[in-house]
Amino acid sequence: MNSKIVALLTDFGGKDAYVGVMKAIILSRDPSIRIVDLTHEIEPQDLLSASYLLYTAWDYFPSGSVFCAVVDPGVGSERGTLLAEIQGRYLIAPDNGLISLLLRMYPDGLVHSLRIAGLSEPDTDAVPSTTAPPPTRPLPSSTFHGRDLFAPAAALCAVGHGEQLRGRRIQPVVLPEVIPEHVAGVVHGQILHIDRFGNCITSVHRRDIEMLEANHRRIVVQAGTFHDEALRTTYADVQVGAALCLVGSSGFLEIAVREGSAAKHYGFSPGQSVTLTGADH
Amino acid sequence: MNSKIVALLTDFGGKDAYVGVMKAIILSRDPSIRIVDLTHEIEPQDLLSASYLLYTAWDYFPSGSVFCAVVDPGVGSERGTLLAEIQGRYLIAPDNGLISLLLRMYPDGLVHSLRIAGLSEPDTDAVPSTTAPPPTRPLPSSTFHGRDLFAPAAALCAVGHGEQLRGRRIQPVVLPEVIPEHVAGVVHGQILHIDRFGNCITSVHRRDIEMLEANHRRIVVQAGTFHDEALRTTYADVQVGAALCLVGSSGFLEIAVREGSAAKHYGFSPGQSVTLTGADH
Amino acid sequence: MNSKIVALLTDFGGKDAYVGVMKAIILSRDPSIRIVDLTHEIEPQDLLSASYLLYTAWDYFPSGSVFCAVVDPGVGSERGTLLAEIQGRYLIAPDNGLISLLLRMYPDGLVHSLRIAGLSEPDTDAVPSTTAPPPTRPLPSSTFHGRDLFAPAAALCAVGHGEQLRGRRIQPVVLPEVIPEHVAGVVHGQILHIDRFGNCITSVHRRDIEMLEANHRRIVVQAGTFHDEALRTTYADVQVGAALCLVGSSGFLEIAVREGSAAKHYGFSPGQSVTLTGADH
Repeated sequence: MNSKIVALLTDFGGKDAYVGVMKAIILSRDPSIRIVDLTHEIEPQDLLSASYLLYTAWDYFPSGSVFCAVVDPGVGSERGTLLAEIQGRYLIAPDNGLISLLLRMYPDGLVHSLRIAGLSEPDTDAVPSTTAPPPTRPLPSSTFHGRDLFAPAAALCAVGHGEQLRGRRIQPVVLPEVIPEHVAGVVHGQILHIDRFGNCITSVHRRDIEMLEANHRRIVVQAGTFHDEALRTTYADVQVGAALCLVGSSGFLEIAVREGSAAKHYGFSPGQSVTLTGADH
Repeated sequence: MNSKIVALLTDFGGKDAYVGVMKAIILSRDPSIRIVDLTHEIEPQDLLSASYLLYTAWDYFPSGSVFCAVVDPGVGSERGTLLAEIQGRYLIAPDNGLISLLLRMYPDGLVHSLRIAGLSEPDTDAVPSTTAPPPTRPLPSSTFHGRDLFAPAAALCAVGHGEQLRGRRIQPVVLPEVIPEHVAGVVHGQILHIDRFGNCITSVHRRDIEMLEANHRRIVVQAGTFHDEALRTTYADVQVGAALCLVGSSGFLEIAVREGSAAKHYGFSPGQSVTLTGADH
Repeated sequence: MNSKIVALLTDFGGKDAYVGVMKAIILSRDPSIRIVDLTHEIEPQDLLSASYLLYTAWDYFPSGSVFCAVVDPGVGSERGTLLAEIQGRYLIAPDNGLISLLLRMYPDGLVHSLRIAGLSEPDTDAVPSTTAPPPTRPLPSSTFHGRDLFAPAAALCAVGHGEQLRGRRIQPVVLPEVIPEHVAGVVHGQILHIDRFGNCITSVHRRDIEMLEANHRRIVVQAGTFHDEALRTTYADVQVGAALCLVGSSGFLEIAVREGSAAKHYGFSPGQSVTLTGADH
């Protein structure tokens, strides 16, 4: 069974009808598509955070799911668009770095440019006979590609016609910030995302830590005035109000304050550098 | 196939369970109804913004969709309620001006008062035999008509029994602010809605501009300290941080700052007046 | 028909993908489960407000619905988890007081600890043959039980296998703040929840008021500088901007300002004490 799921991630927020209109477009293609909101509260233009959140959700979705991600400061410019196939799931997005962390973690992802002709020349077979045809629209607007380009493409992909959307193979834009550097026993990373609770999630993955641990007896974590020499397992390992670092639920190093906000406590914002130093005594 | 879609627009926000309860009522009528959130972040009592957002979403939804809009400063007072049929879709709402922009753009909309008796004397045929009957409730509460009146009506309409809800034909309340004035080569409009990005969307429609263009060589747009003599096509037509005006994705004139907030930059708020002046040299 | 509805209430907010991932887990179990968001905007750790909102929604959902509530300051500590059966619906939650108001109002609720073994030893019969099996995961993470414990449990319960999740009968944690005290003709309650509009909802139920009314001619309501001697029926019973108290749509005493915010006007926050005094002249 094709479970026909579309997951949406945008920076459209909740005070407009932009997301609702995208959903209308998707349901007009096929009202049985299940739509899941990942988040619409990405800070305008925060591609690193968006890239992180896409990765954390990716493999919890059923195989065949389509992720439609629209964080698009370059709408109307010459930036490209992409259709990626990664671990049996699909990503439809602008080619602006949104895919970065996914490709770091799954480098065998297959990436094509999005073939828009597949949308403007609809194959009627793509529309189940029981559904209304999608509304006929003029050419895509120059400002709302979420509605006029990405949502129709995601719906087409979700009903099993993703191949119509495959353009040429491309080498997508990848943001270097998602990849920490290993230099002489030190891992240099940065904060990618700050969650609602003020937990600061970094680009340093469990694998980076394991590489360091293989060669050193212990690890010193430093970020601004945060300094710790122990990785904890859960927030409750420290007292209420105390700071800690741990590998969080997504597999990345995270700096947190138990029942408090590490971001506020340390004044951290995305991009803050974090170093892990191997030590032997 | 009846796609049984209910779109919700309210000012209930996300911190309460008001919207969730409306959805429970709808799914109690028929769990196969698809519910789409347009927005719940309307500023309390901001009927102009709500009216604008309803219009922008309207014809992207499949035919037969039901819009349930609850922005209702007058709950418990004598304000009326309405059931409108516009372009093959339905609106269930208080009769307080929410419908204004829809009726401006689609003046042939058919508007009845909402016949509440259709709710309190349920026709058992209206409930598909496979679904649980809606919970039995006392008379509508005096404060939560979204739950006790509008949601049950929307569900009934979505399952195809809208005719039970038709009261008498009415002339609904229309807010004059949604209609710009044309006076001696000048169009006087106002800002109806400010979106998440700070883009300021006005009551001036593409058609208003075309009327002006038919008689003049160029158009001067003025709003507070914003002044421009060119309409652009997309945000990327100007430098990052520069202001522009363009006909946005909904067909209305919009004042924007590329990758910035026009509302903040110019200090605009809803109701700000905007003029378009035809010029011939 | 089992309507397979899961209602979610968390303090995860909207800026992360935590809620989206929980939904992915649920749809991986069975893509036909309907998921309804109650709210995700509970203030971190605000168990009283969460407990209130759960109660207000409870009996509007179809019989068989599963509520999955994750407000969990003690994640990773030794706090327990529970599966409750109340009025034909289910609650899956940490055992930290979230259930308090439900148990006050429905004291015959049946509460078991959540048997996690029911999750880690999946019964393949529980997975309809047409759905993909849920993703195989390592042991629950220590920080994201919403994803690794509560969402899988809610899905299993929604598809009709709740009995696998029943541990031993327990006496759950109940927060005393949800129960007002009756002392010598005075009811002592407190504010449990402040809604989006600034309405302040208290722990004093219509039944508490009726007990007082049975013995006294009238009632004086006092909270900070708010003082009133009349209960109104609806906001429109007073002038715009005036304060009032009334039994709100959930059956609890509420202090409100018509078209304004009582919380701002009086400086109220949750926990504010409220007294109702019976008077006879």
